[in-house]
Parts: sequence; structure tokens; C-alpha cells
Amino acid sequence: ERFREQKSIHEIIQSIASKKGLDPLSHEFARYLDDNDELKHLREEFSLPKVSECIAEGVVPITSEEEVVYLSGNSLGLLPKRTRKLINEELDVWATSAVRAHFNHKLGRNWATIEDQVISKLTGIVGAKPIEIAVMNTLTSNIHLLLASFYTPTQSRFKILIEESSFPSDRYALESQIKFHGYLVEAALIEIKPRPGDITPEIEDVLNIIEKEGDSIALVFMEAVNYHTGQLFDIPKITKAAQKKGCIVAWNLAHAIGNVELKLHDWNVDLAVWCSYKYLNAGPGGIAGIFVHEKHAHEFDRPRIVISAFQPMPGAKGFQVSNPSALDMVALYGSLEVFSLTNMSDLCQKSYLLTGYLEFLLDENLHGVGYRIITPRNPHEHGAQLSLMFDELKVEKIADDLLIRGIICDERKQSVLRVAPAPLYNCFSDVYKFVNALKAILSET
Amino acid sequence: ERFREQKSIHEIIQSIASKKGLDPLSHEFARYLDDNDELKHLREEFSLPKVSECIAEGVVPITSEEEVVYLSGNSLGLLPKRTRKLINEELDVWATSAVRAHFNHKLGRNWATIEDQVISKLTGIVGAKPIEIAVMNTLTSNIHLLLASFYTPTQSRFKILIEESSFPSDRYALESQIKFHGYLVEAALIEIKPRPGDITPEIEDVLNIIEKEGDSIALVFMEAVNYHTGQLFDIPKITKAAQKKGCIVAWNLAHAIGNVELKLHDWNVDLAVWCSYKYLNAGPGGIAGIFVHEKHAHEFDRPRIVISAFQPMPGAKGFQVSNPSALDMVALYGSLEVFSLTNMSDLCQKSYLLTGYLEFLLDENLHGVGYRIITPRNPHEHGAQLSLMFDELKVEKIADDLLIRGIICDERKQSVLRVAPAPLYNCFSDVYKFVNALKAILSET
Ligand SMILES: Cc1ncc(COP(=O)(O)O)c(C=O)c1O
Ligand SMILES: Cc1ncc(COP(=O)(O)O)c(C=O)c1O
Repeated sequence: ERFREQKSIHEIIQSIASKKGLDPLSHEFARYLDDNDELKHLREEFSLPKVSECIAEGVVPITSEEEVVYLSGNSLGLLPKRTRKLINEELDVWATSAVRAHFNHKLGRNWATIEDQVISKLTGIVGAKPIEIAVMNTLTSNIHLLLASFYTPTQSRFKILIEESSFPSDRYALESQIKFHGYLVEAALIEIKPRPGDITPEIEDVLNIIEKEGDSIALVFMEAVNYHTGQLFDIPKITKAAQKKGCIVAWNLAHAIGNVELKLHDWNVDLAVWCSYKYLNAGPGGIAGIFVHEKHAHEFDRPRIVISAFQPMPGAKGFQVSNPSALDMVALYGSLEVFSLTNMSDLCQKSYLLTGYLEFLLDENLHGVGYRIITPRNPHEHGAQLSLMFDELKVEKIADDLLIRGIICDERKQSVLRVAPAPLYNCFSDVYKFVNALKAILSET
Repeated sequence: ERFREQKSIHEIIQSIASKKGLDPLSHEFARYLDDNDELKHLREEFSLPKVSECIAEGVVPITSEEEVVYLSGNSLGLLPKRTRKLINEELDVWATSAVRAHFNHKLGRNWATIEDQVISKLTGIVGAKPIEIAVMNTLTSNIHLLLASFYTPTQSRFKILIEESSFPSDRYALESQIKFHGYLVEAALIEIKPRPGDITPEIEDVLNIIEKEGDSIALVFMEAVNYHTGQLFDIPKITKAAQKKGCIVAWNLAHAIGNVELKLHDWNVDLAVWCSYKYLNAGPGGIAGIFVHEKHAHEFDRPRIVISAFQPMPGAKGFQVSNPSALDMVALYGSLEVFSLTNMSDLCQKSYLLTGYLEFLLDENLHGVGYRIITPRNPHEHGAQLSLMFDELKVEKIADDLLIRGIICDERKQSVLRVAPAPLYNCFSDVYKFVNALKAILSET
């Protein structure tokens, strides 16, 4: 099945090219894809760093164009131009209205309720009802605030299921939750592992471990898209299987939100958390968010480390604390306005082609250079990101060599290069330039 | 003793006036005080809202000057002009360097470590060593993150001592902590109350309750400056008394930071939390902070709901989670740069005179109008804020009437008007205008 899917993106690319009589490996073809990209105007919404400013003096960009090839949107999304405007408006309002802007904001964004405007733009991105979303704090603190209520281990059900290659701070968060409740990490933290020789686990193995251990699992906590491998998991299938066993299922959407289509409500997901500085482009350390399924909206009897009022609000807001940062709120809002110019379905359609084109070019151009794509090939098992693993530990050097060619992607020690063309602002030529630069670098060494 | 202190600020004001042959109740005298204010240049550092923009069309400012009289710095501090510059620089860096700014920030504020620059400016404001401070999240979430480690109730020691008139969300936070640990709020939450007929408690009564109940108190959690009454507590005395009984002592500095002199390290305070949007002028929902005394810096065996790395960092940073917001960080930094133009000792010296002048003018101008100052008169028992309580519940109307005269202060239902001249940007004429407007309003009704 994997092979069929893999063949299919290759076939699609090749058939588009041959229909136009273009060489699918040519720069011309990349330009053709850009010209025919129905979302190409969205790139104009962002500030693209210039090679000269972003990298250093004396670098050798591969083209005469000045903009960097930015393939690190999975790490920090680019600045939406309207965010600059919104932030400055907010500074003006602070300057001219001060405390009165909480309830008399001259631009209609009362600080006391601005969150609701942000939430209404997030519903389509995560597939949720407004009552299921709160925008607050940072990712890791939200994990703790939610788990205080939803990880309530008992002697017979106390385990947390994670993926072996979870993001380190997630693992620490879960370990500390386990210890906090007086359980042993060795006994309580169970890990989904890939098969011998593999890098990513098979979905069947995830389902098997749930089937086998589910009765003692209190919480399944997985990254919807793994930060390292780019693997996208089958959220509805895993959620359903785990819930059948009585587990609470929480998804970390750090690398999924704004990247893949999500239907959290329909999929009956219990909980989700996310940060907003990756595909959501809300800026460094931008304000994070949570999802709590409507079915939990009125569970006021759960333990709550947080009570923000005498009677907690129903829904996700019942877990909210503190005045949110108005600057961070509008920074997120600016990006969500850009998302509103399209929709997740169209965006993912472009992403399928854009990342498929990346896969195609890599496969066609790089032979026998001692690397492999560790991200699953099936397009239902990844979003924008492909992770390349190199046999020899030379990825740092490769990243440096890409950098002096004006290309920014993300190296993970020791051997993985993460490449994420973000469909909101990346173009097919970005992908073309990246693959050809990588080819040149690898052939030099 | 109170009377002596009260007399003394009156005497000081009167003696300054008589030395210059000025009527202490005249506007001329206010202007004289402004002219001789050694910190008057700091007002230029802030954006002062204009009456026309801030309030509404058709209001009647009491003077021909355009700026509002802003006495709500205890609620939201004004925008420091340099913050606008810093934020825009940060947006530029995001636009031009994107993810590279984490470690290659062209203005020397690497996002990965910007916090340390902020911390080094906070040390003088709270009287702490760098290792004792972390800048993170929001106030209430920080309360929960810290109490997860430091409120560890046992059957014999499980109580939390608070003030009866605590800020509502603080009370809810503490109640939820108590419930979370399985204790009854009625049994575990004990309250410091004022004597019959009084509004603010006496320090002796605080010490008495600690002496009597201290052995069963796990945590003393008090606002250093009460949000409602403006009462400043004797932090070192209460801390010492409670610690002698074996309690952990935590101070909420929401209304104290940037307002009164603090020596948290020397006073041997265990914990402190604060928000930064009041006297610290970091903007709506600005990034908050914590203090953990150096003596706790290496207590890695405490329960930690938070572990941010395999081995937590020593000190306050060991309780930190998540990437902080870069925009919020520089917003705070901008204001701290202004604080660096003076020091807390000089600032509090001005504040003593400024709020003393407010007290003097109120006492001299308002007779028999059915109000009283509920803030303790002793200048060691308050900071910038005085709270006025009106006999009849007409404070909403008074606040509205002040507003149409271009004066912003903060009304707390049902009967309290909070007036806080912030010494960084308020001037003596602000105070003069406020008192005379209030006098006019009260004589009309
Ligand atoms: C004493 C006190 N505690 C708590 C808070 C709540 O702060 P936040 O909403 O930022 O958590 C405030 C805010 O005004 C406060 O003054
Ligand atoms: C999967 C995952 N979890 C957790 C985090 C940590 O987020 P934060 O530092 O904002 O809490 C990240 C950040 O990259 C992440 O990708």
C-alpha cells in the first residue's frame, strides 16, 4: 500500500510535467507549478527574510534572488505582514487608551474578550466548536494544567502511553506527572517503539499495544505529527481504539496545527494542546492553546488545579487562568487572518503536492548518497515535513553548507535534516532550489 | 504611632510650601513640586493618553492640557516609548532572521537567552540574585506551578493562611490547591481578618494568628500590597514569624513590584510571584515572574509538576516551562530600561512625597463628604495607592464624573475608588487635578 501511494505522487508529478511537455526535474517545471499555484498570492502575506540580512556577509546564494529558501516553518513560522500592523495598532491603543482598552478598545478588540475572536478563527483549523478551545499560556504549562484534571491515575489504571521518540520536554512533563502522583516512571510510562531496523512505528503496533495494555492505560499522549520523523498518526483510529479501552486520549498538535487537517470534535478526541509558533506563525513563544472535547465541558467534579472563578466556566475556558497577553493574542490573530484567506482543505491540497514534489525530486536526484527519507511515504502519514537521515553523521556540515547557499532548514543531531515547505508561503521553486543545492553539496563531499 | 507618621507627611508638605511662601493647596505649589522633582524627566519616557482619544468626544477636561490624569497604573501601567521601539525591532528581527534569531539575533538579544537580560534588570527591583528569578507565563499559572512543589500538605500541617480580602483569583487558586490535595477548604484555608469596624488587619493580628496556628500552617500566601486596600504588609517581620513556625512563606507582588522597595533575598522570603502589567508597565497580560529563594535552589527532591530537562536547573529556572514569548520579553525589557534610569530607593522617595501629597490634599480639601481613606496612613504600610471608601454606594457615579473630567482611576464595586499616582510618570499636578476634581464632584452632589 505504501508503494502504491508513493508511486502515485511520482505519477502525478510526472503526468503534470508531461502534459505540459516539461522536464519534471527542470527549474522551468518548478516555475510552472508556482505559476499555477492557486495559493501563490499568500506568500505575499509574509515577510521573507533576505539572504543578506538573515545569514551573513559573504554567503553564496544559489540564485541571484535575494530571499532565503526558508524550510523551517516547522520550527518558527514567518512573520505575517499584517501582524506587524496589528501589533502596532495594539501599541497605539495601549498608548492612547491604556486600561480603558479592556472594555473600550477603539478598534473593536476589547482586551477582555479578544480571545473569542481568536477562537472563532481557530475552530476551522482544529475542527472544534468554540466551547472546546481556549487560547492561553504556553504549550508545556498547558499540558500540566490539563493533566492535573485528566490524568487521575488509580492503582489499576495509571499508565501513560507515549511514542519512544517523543519530544523531550513532553516526556519530562509526563514523567513529572507520574512521579507527582507517586508512581514509578519505569512502571507507568510505556513506549510505542518502531520495529527493529525501522525509525517510525507502524500503526498496527500502536493499536496492538493499546489492545494489550489498554486496561491499565490512563492516558494516551502522542504527537499528532512527530517532531523528529514527521510521521502523522491516524488520530481517529488511535483515539477510538484507546477510548474503547477506557483511556483518555490527548494529542500534542505542536507540529500538526496549521499543517494537516484536523477534525478534533468529530474524531471525539478528548484533549489536545498546541503551540502556535510553528505552522501557525504566531511568533517566538507565541500564545498556545488547548482543546477539551465538548463531552467534558461540564465535568465540574474533575479535580482542577485551576479554578478561575467560583464556578468554573464550562468547556475549555474552565481550565484557563490569567489575563492573556494582548500582544501575543493579536500576533496570533494576524496569522489566523491569513489562514482565513484559504481553508485547511485547500492548504493541505497544496501541501500534498508541494511536499510530494520534494519527495519526487529527492528520489529522482539523489542516488546512492547514503541517506533515506525516514518520514512515512504514505501521504496520509505526513504533513509538510520530510525528515532525511544521513548515514554518516555529517548533517551539521550539510546544514551549514545549505546555509551559505541561502537555504534554512533544521538539523537535529546527530543525523536528521528536517525539511518543511510550508504551503502558506513556500513555493515549488523553494523546493527545487533546496534539492539541487543538497545534490551539489553531497556530490562535492 | 500612626498619628505621628500622618502628622509628619502633613508637616513635610506644609514646611516645603511655607519655605517657598506658597499656599500648599494651590496649583502653583503643585507646579513647584513638579519643577523640583528630580525624576520628572521620566514622564517623557511614557506615552500619556490624550483626553480626546482615550475617553470620548465631548468630555470636559478640567484643564486646557490634553493629557488624561492617569491614576490607574496599579491596574495597567502606561506604554514606555522605548517598548514601542523594541517591539518593532523584534518584529524586524523576526522578519529578517526568523528562526536564526534564537541564536543569531542581530541586536544581541538572542531569543534563547533574552530572559537573562531581563532577569538582570529585575534583580534590583525585587532585591534578588539572578538565580532566584525566572520570567515566565502568567501570574496565576505560576502560582500553580510553584505550589505544586512548595505546598505539600501533611495531616498535621496542611493549612494555608491568607488575608480575608485576597484577590479573588488568588483565593480560587489556593482553594483548588487545597481540594487537589484532598483537604477541605473550610478546614484548610484560614483568613486574616480586620478587627470589627476596621477594613485592614493589624500586623499584630497577623503575627498572633501565625503564633497560634503556625504549627498547622503549611503555607502563608499574602499579597505584599493588597489590591483593594493598598495596605503594604511588613514582609520581613511576617516572613520571619511564619518561618519560625515552619511555614513556607509566599508573597504575591502583583501590586508591590515596581511600587515599593523589596529585598526578597535579604528578607529570606521563600517564594514570590508577580505579574508585570501594573507598576512594571509590561503591557496587558505581560509576562510574569517568580522568585525562589537561593536556599531552595538545589532542592531537587521536592515534587515538581514541572521538569523542563532531565536534570532540572538549579534555582528559579528549575520551575520554568516553555519557550517564553519574545514580544512579551522585550515589552518588559523596555520598561525595565526605564527603571534603570533611576533606582527603587529614589523612586520610592518620590512616591512617598507624591502619595503623601495626595493624602494631604484629600485631608485638607474634603471634609464631611462621607468618605474615608481605608489605606493605612503609616507610609510604611502603603505604596503609591490610596483607596477611598465612600459611605453611600456612589463610587461608580464618581468614577464616571472623574472620567468626563479627563481623570482615570479605578473603581471597585461597591464603594472603593483606588487612586495610584505612579512615581515613574505621574506628577504632582496630576494629584492636584484629581483632588480638586473630586472636590468639585462631591460638592455638586
Ligand atoms: C493580587 C493579584 N493576584 C492575581 C491577579 C491575577 O493575575 P493574572 O490574571 O495575570 O494571573 C492579579 C491581577 O490583577 C492580582 O492583582
Ligand atoms: C512536540 C512538542 N512538544 C513540546 C514543545 C515545547 O513547547 P514549549 O516550549 O512552547 O512549551 C515543542 C516545541 O517545539 C514541541 O514541538
